Amino acid sequence: MVAKDLISFDNEVFSAYVFWSAVLVLKLLFMSLHTGRLRFKTRTFQNPEDLIKKGFKVGFDNPDIQRVRRAHLNDLENLLPFFVIGFLYVLIDPAPALAINLFRAVGIARIVHTIVYAVVVMPQPSRLIAYSIGLNATIYMGFQVVIAAL
Amino acid sequence: MVAKDLISFDNEVFSAYVFWSAVLVLKLLFMSLHTGRLRFKTRTFQNPEDLIKKGFKVGFDNPDIQRVRRAHLNDLENLLPFFVIGFLYVLIDPAPALAINLFRAVGIARIVHTIVYAVVVMPQPSRLIAYSIGLNATIYMGFQVVIAAL
Amino acid sequence: MVAKDLISFDNEVFSAYVFWSAVLVLKLLFMSLHTGRLRFKTRTFQNPEDLIKKGFKVGFDNPDIQRVRRAHLNDLENLLPFFVIGFLYVLIDPAPALAINLFRAVGIARIVHTIVYAVVVMPQPSRLIAYSIGLNATIYMGFQVVIAAL
Repeated sequence: MVAKDLISFDNEVFSAYVFWSAVLVLKLLFMSLHTGRLRFKTRTFQNPEDLIKKGFKVGFDNPDIQRVRRAHLNDLENLLPFFVIGFLYVLIDPAPALAINLFRAVGIARIVHTIVYAVVVMPQPSRLIAYSIGLNATIYMGFQVVIAAL
Repeated sequence: MVAKDLISFDNEVFSAYVFWSAVLVLKLLFMSLHTGRLRFKTRTFQNPEDLIKKGFKVGFDNPDIQRVRRAHLNDLENLLPFFVIGFLYVLIDPAPALAINLFRAVGIARIVHTIVYAVVVMPQPSRLIAYSIGLNATIYMGFQVVIAAL
Repeated sequence: MVAKDLISFDNEVFSAYVFWSAVLVLKLLFMSLHTGRLRFKTRTFQNPEDLIKKGFKVGFDNPDIQRVRRAHLNDLENLLPFFVIGFLYVLIDPAPALAINLFRAVGIARIVHTIVYAVVVMPQPSRLIAYSIGLNATIYMGFQVVIAAL
């Protein structure tokens, strides 16, 4: 099958990729909103021009904000690879059940990662497990795509 | 219409996505060049091996460089979602006038964001408005894609 | 030729893009693994809940870890543009020999960049050369795509 023909909502693998990618894009943007909420709550901003109300201050050491920032950066580091390799993986025509479960695994793992890292902090190894599932699924797809494109 | 058939320069929505994405990629790379220029101007670098001329120093607290770095990171956080969701949004066959204006809004908003944050610093709420337009347009597209892929 | 017809493994430009993108995704994920390895080796972590063994500490100033973090962030800043513009560049039907060599140049340059920055630190201008090759190739593709989409 030619790669382009797999880009169709009749292809359940493509649909699953689109669904989970869009969910994860929204989850990624949630980090921005979460950071913004914490900035107003703690009145802690990054730039002098942001101090538009009395009591606002510039600061880079609020532990709650820094935690969300770390979770956000970890998201960028892991979601960029998923968005790219997930799409290319669709185009190499993988076994549907496997592919759909990989996308689901990454999607759920990254949502759990955000919750236990930046919403309700949970003891390890909760974050490590969520992180590893997403990372390993992405690495697996990466190798499959490299092999298919050789 | 099948998703793949929308990937064509005959489709004005696809063309608009390609145009604004490429413009925003170049804008994103401009941040790297801008940071590099400021590093040479202020002789402030990040690594010992970068000190190739007398007067060069390692430093992480130059306010101008840190400002550009924050603008750059904000770009990564907002452009990655746009690049992904914009492409998927093209594939769900949206109303052309709406889609083209959303891409245009994100493109212009992010260029303005860079200017008022890192080139000619402007008082708030200029940056907040630019930021919000880009963010809300991206969130809107994200929900549309999730709904279409359900 | 319609853009969608270029999305095919019969198109050697598309195949080269897929191959180098997947290699660079794996290289990007290597940075995460490399950071993790250094965290355990130096027992230096970012969060209180990560201190699951005696001797583990929270710290943000280990020079080796910070170096890998800078290399990782530089990767995000440069690979996101490449992944996006490389794909769009495939769709404007470029001369195959040029396109394939551009992808190869970016792929090799970014691998070399990682090695000389974060694995075996090499004197400048090794990192600057690797960085510039990747950046200039990406900027060139960006302008070509903007022109084609006008």
